[in-house]
Amino acid sequence: MPLFFKISHLFLLLFVSTLSSSSSPFGYNHPLDSLTLSELTQVKTIVKKSYLLINVTFHYVGLNEPEKPLVLSWISINHPTKNPPREAIVITRIDQKTHEIIVDLSSDSILSDKIYDGHGYPMLTSQEQNVAEKLPFTYQPFISSIEKRGLRLKEVVCQSSTVGWYGEKRKSNRMIKLICYYLDGTVNLYMRPIEGITIVVGLDQMKIASYLDRLMVPVPKADGTDYIEPKPRARSNLQLDGKRIMQPDGPTFTLDGNTVRWADWKFHVDYDMRAGIIISLASIFDDDKGEFRSVLYRGFISEVFVPYMDLSEDWYDRTFFDAGEFGFGLSAVELQASKGCPENAKFLGYSIYQDGTPGKMPNVICIFERYAGDIMWRHTELAIPGEVIAKVKPAVSLVVRMVSTVGNYDYITDYEFKQSGSIKVTVGLTGMLEVRGSMYTHNDHITEEAYGTLVAENTLGAYHDHFLTFHLDLYVDGHENSFVKNNLKTSRVINKSSPRKRYWTVVSETAKTESDARIQLGSGALEMVAVNPNKKTNLGNKIGYYLIPGSATGPLLSDDDYPQIRGGFTKYNVWVTPYNKSEKWAGGLYTDQSHGDDTLAMWSLM
Amino acid sequence: MPLFFKISHLFLLLFVSTLSSSSSPFGYNHPLDSLTLSELTQVKTIVKKSYLLINVTFHYVGLNEPEKPLVLSWISINHPTKNPPREAIVITRIDQKTHEIIVDLSSDSILSDKIYDGHGYPMLTSQEQNVAEKLPFTYQPFISSIEKRGLRLKEVVCQSSTVGWYGEKRKSNRMIKLICYYLDGTVNLYMRPIEGITIVVGLDQMKIASYLDRLMVPVPKADGTDYIEPKPRARSNLQLDGKRIMQPDGPTFTLDGNTVRWADWKFHVDYDMRAGIIISLASIFDDDKGEFRSVLYRGFISEVFVPYMDLSEDWYDRTFFDAGEFGFGLSAVELQASKGCPENAKFLGYSIYQDGTPGKMPNVICIFERYAGDIMWRHTELAIPGEVIAKVKPAVSLVVRMVSTVGNYDYITDYEFKQSGSIKVTVGLTGMLEVRGSMYTHNDHITEEAYGTLVAENTLGAYHDHFLTFHLDLYVDGHENSFVKNNLKTSRVINKSSPRKRYWTVVSETAKTESDARIQLGSGALEMVAVNPNKKTNLGNKIGYYLIPGSATGPLLSDDDYPQIRGGFTKYNVWVTPYNKSEKWAGGLYTDQSHGDDTLAMWSLM
Repeated sequence: MPLFFKISHLFLLLFVSTLSSSSSPFGYNHPLDSLTLSELTQVKTIVKKSYLLINVTFHYVGLNEPEKPLVLSWISINHPTKNPPREAIVITRIDQKTHEIIVDLSSDSILSDKIYDGHGYPMLTSQEQNVAEKLPFTYQPFISSIEKRGLRLKEVVCQSSTVGWYGEKRKSNRMIKLICYYLDGTVNLYMRPIEGITIVVGLDQMKIASYLDRLMVPVPKADGTDYIEPKPRARSNLQLDGKRIMQPDGPTFTLDGNTVRWADWKFHVDYDMRAGIIISLASIFDDDKGEFRSVLYRGFISEVFVPYMDLSEDWYDRTFFDAGEFGFGLSAVELQASKGCPENAKFLGYSIYQDGTPGKMPNVICIFERYAGDIMWRHTELAIPGEVIAKVKPAVSLVVRMVSTVGNYDYITDYEFKQSGSIKVTVGLTGMLEVRGSMYTHNDHITEEAYGTLVAENTLGAYHDHFLTFHLDLYVDGHENSFVKNNLKTSRVINKSSPRKRYWTVVSETAKTESDARIQLGSGALEMVAVNPNKKTNLGNKIGYYLIPGSATGPLLSDDDYPQIRGGFTKYNVWVTPYNKSEKWAGGLYTDQSHGDDTLAMWSLM
Repeated sequence: MPLFFKISHLFLLLFVSTLSSSSSPFGYNHPLDSLTLSELTQVKTIVKKSYLLINVTFHYVGLNEPEKPLVLSWISINHPTKNPPREAIVITRIDQKTHEIIVDLSSDSILSDKIYDGHGYPMLTSQEQNVAEKLPFTYQPFISSIEKRGLRLKEVVCQSSTVGWYGEKRKSNRMIKLICYYLDGTVNLYMRPIEGITIVVGLDQMKIASYLDRLMVPVPKADGTDYIEPKPRARSNLQLDGKRIMQPDGPTFTLDGNTVRWADWKFHVDYDMRAGIIISLASIFDDDKGEFRSVLYRGFISEVFVPYMDLSEDWYDRTFFDAGEFGFGLSAVELQASKGCPENAKFLGYSIYQDGTPGKMPNVICIFERYAGDIMWRHTELAIPGEVIAKVKPAVSLVVRMVSTVGNYDYITDYEFKQSGSIKVTVGLTGMLEVRGSMYTHNDHITEEAYGTLVAENTLGAYHDHFLTFHLDLYVDGHENSFVKNNLKTSRVINKSSPRKRYWTVVSETAKTESDARIQLGSGALEMVAVNPNKKTNLGNKIGYYLIPGSATGPLLSDDDYPQIRGGFTKYNVWVTPYNKSEKWAGGLYTDQSHGDDTLAMWSLM
């Protein structure tokens, strides 16, 4: 899981002490609150008024958040009278052009309206995907293809697939491909792909732009593909329903607008169509200092790159950017107690621009306290004569969760706030494997490259990666932070001053350039710390916050491979860049059909 | 965390189908059960009878388990009439010599009694440590040293520290050093080391063999060192007691002797003085086949190597082997509900040879079902017209836990059995940091190598590693297993057959030699699988069990450094060796003061 996080050297430290109360005079609670339903409606009205009688599709509508110094200044004042500007960023398609519109909500006006003419297109809307996915069912060549295969049209469903970029020099039209599946006895459509048919839809015309029925491949059988709970087994005596998390006194966290307080933590939780969960202004209370100390200004999923490694005709272009193309927030599914979130969870709904119109999306995020029987800290002391001391502090944490279902795949994003002061970010990958229909029914028949593993008769599980990239804008104990590498360096013992020959020690190195801070994990013994260079402890130690990676990986493609040019940000596991509000999306703002000229790797050129 | 696991190519497959009932005619339930209290007493009587009027100290008493084929044969028979031999392995010190005695419990006799005269000594007993730690209090030079420092003797406690080996050619006597601490206002003795005094105890004579008061260093203050629960903070509104795990119908696992059955899992759980938890014969029920399928024959912690990197006079020799020197089982502490194990845990006690005599150790291991709000599998399907399908399977697992407190450090060992079929092994490190008393009170004063971080006034937290090595003897779907590396290999696209330039595919390689199977994690994109080469799925795929590492590290010392010679098994994260019952302990059977000639690295020479 690559990470990138952004650190600023530009602004004055403004310490976070208190948050505004919920009785705000401004109609919304907090300058980082996402747009309310009435604000989304206001945006729609303002934009539509500018383009009377012209069709406008809204691909992204989100908060154009105030610059960081304004936000930090606002929250540092107990009862602010003046508010940071309240703006929306709106990405639309109007008359086959991409418009980037900034709307000022206070003055009810458009601040700017720029046509974007570079490579790449905005996120797909769910509405246009739905319309496109119906096109084949009235398209005679497709109907014939289905008949030719002996399949029944009413059991067929089609799904949108982005087309990427494979070196074409000129700007392509905005398009998607459709991948069709056969139900007929299962709800697990992904296990029954109908291979050999290439359907390209021109999205601006909303028409099938090209169609090719290339070859017939057996559709895998429906048997055993349905995802039904296994029957309880007498042998296992398993009674999961006997297990319950009880919190008779209710949750111990509070919500004040979108600001959560739990244990020593305080943070703002919000939702964005593209990023999904956004955690802002996370701070932890320091008992000794009697104040909150800041950690994370803003953290969210920046991109999810999923290149498949199947080079066959209908598969080579499956190199998805699940956040930039489909929207990690737009793909969020409704959560339920005991079904994806535990019994003690609370659910948050948000306003969102979906299916062409503003609306409410319920139960998008759940928050719950977790106790898994784990230990935060313990010690047993037997060394003191006549005394046995056993102290244990159980590990209780707070989890903020969202699930994004992008086609076959379900991503479970958890931000876990621990009492130890750490924030653990996990993305669980579940759902369905993407499989290719195949003539093979036995492994021994496979004599050439199959790009996957035979997982059932006529079913190849395709090799692929998932690269999750986070944007983490840390502001540890204030705004000015540096990135420090603590290198574990082996030193030789000199002058036989010890019976040992070598030892390791820590050599700290503050990154001076962005290139100093690019890290491929595993290439050396290293600790990574975001440090506030303006502060020291009483002992004179640096004050910092560790970035502790889990197991990490890197891309196996070459730098000049087209998917890897678009996903160039995966080359390093960690990148550090100066604060720049517009540099949010590691794969670029316009990821769909992008050429890789607006990625993190380009912003941070050596 | 290095892992090593052992795979056999030698024996016939004997499939695990049923276990013996608890009504065994043999007095114990299972050939892998650890020795009962009456068996330990029997061992003591037999050995003492051989050495009348001679002092015998028991350093290790454990089951000399039958060879694997005998065990597998026994459990494959429904009602066995003949039992594998029941033997104990006893390591004693008698007349300043190490004896390795095999006792046959059925015939009430000694099968063999060998004197071990090589390098290294057996595990320390808790009894001899306790006696040694009292010696300074009647030793005048020590009393003077304490007085000279202005400290009160009755507030001093001493702890045993092993001495390692630093290149001496001749065999050293059996000895330990003592490290002394000052209480006086805290129970957290480890934060108040009394530096500058070297006390060497000859263990055979149980006398202070050498004593040196080298220099005076300030003892760190007691203020703030006590480990008291922080007071509840009004601000956090945290009510941990409001949270409870309820299992009104009781646990859903069953215990039949030491055999646990839970969900589809079946395994034997036991305790060893040296290894701590031993998991044996773990199998999972396969619904389709209607039978249990074997996974793990025997798994346990083989060694815990903890080299410190402080080369100062009283510290250079702190290179501990926490399992081989102190006993991971012997160091187990008593667990309590809600204090280290959750409310729904069940506790197991075991018989152990402790303080010179057999006895019962209660609440050594706890077993509990875990539900942390996690998801085992989920999918939401929106593609089917008119239907929304949301399926979620919550992740419930079974945890087997032990805590070993070795001096300042507490290790929490968890074996977690998941319904997905995986076993997750975690060791949590908690307790106290080992610190060095220092003249430094501010980081700016440190101008030369301090071998650590100033964590409080006069207190340096010493740099060190913890290398945990597991012995995992897998028998996936039967006894004959191979080790397969699935290498992710980048291939070039030829003949412009695809718009892509490269892709990765999987190239499987079966390790043919032990050297093929030595792995430094991070050195390549790789999956590791234990495969049964005699079996295939219906599709013709290999049947295997993945070894999935977490984040891993390696040693930074050189191969010729003495601690690294003793800990040579840390050089690779994974080693695979053929089955050999005697090759259990990665650091050698006699680890204390070892010279590294009996380590995993030596058994598995290239």
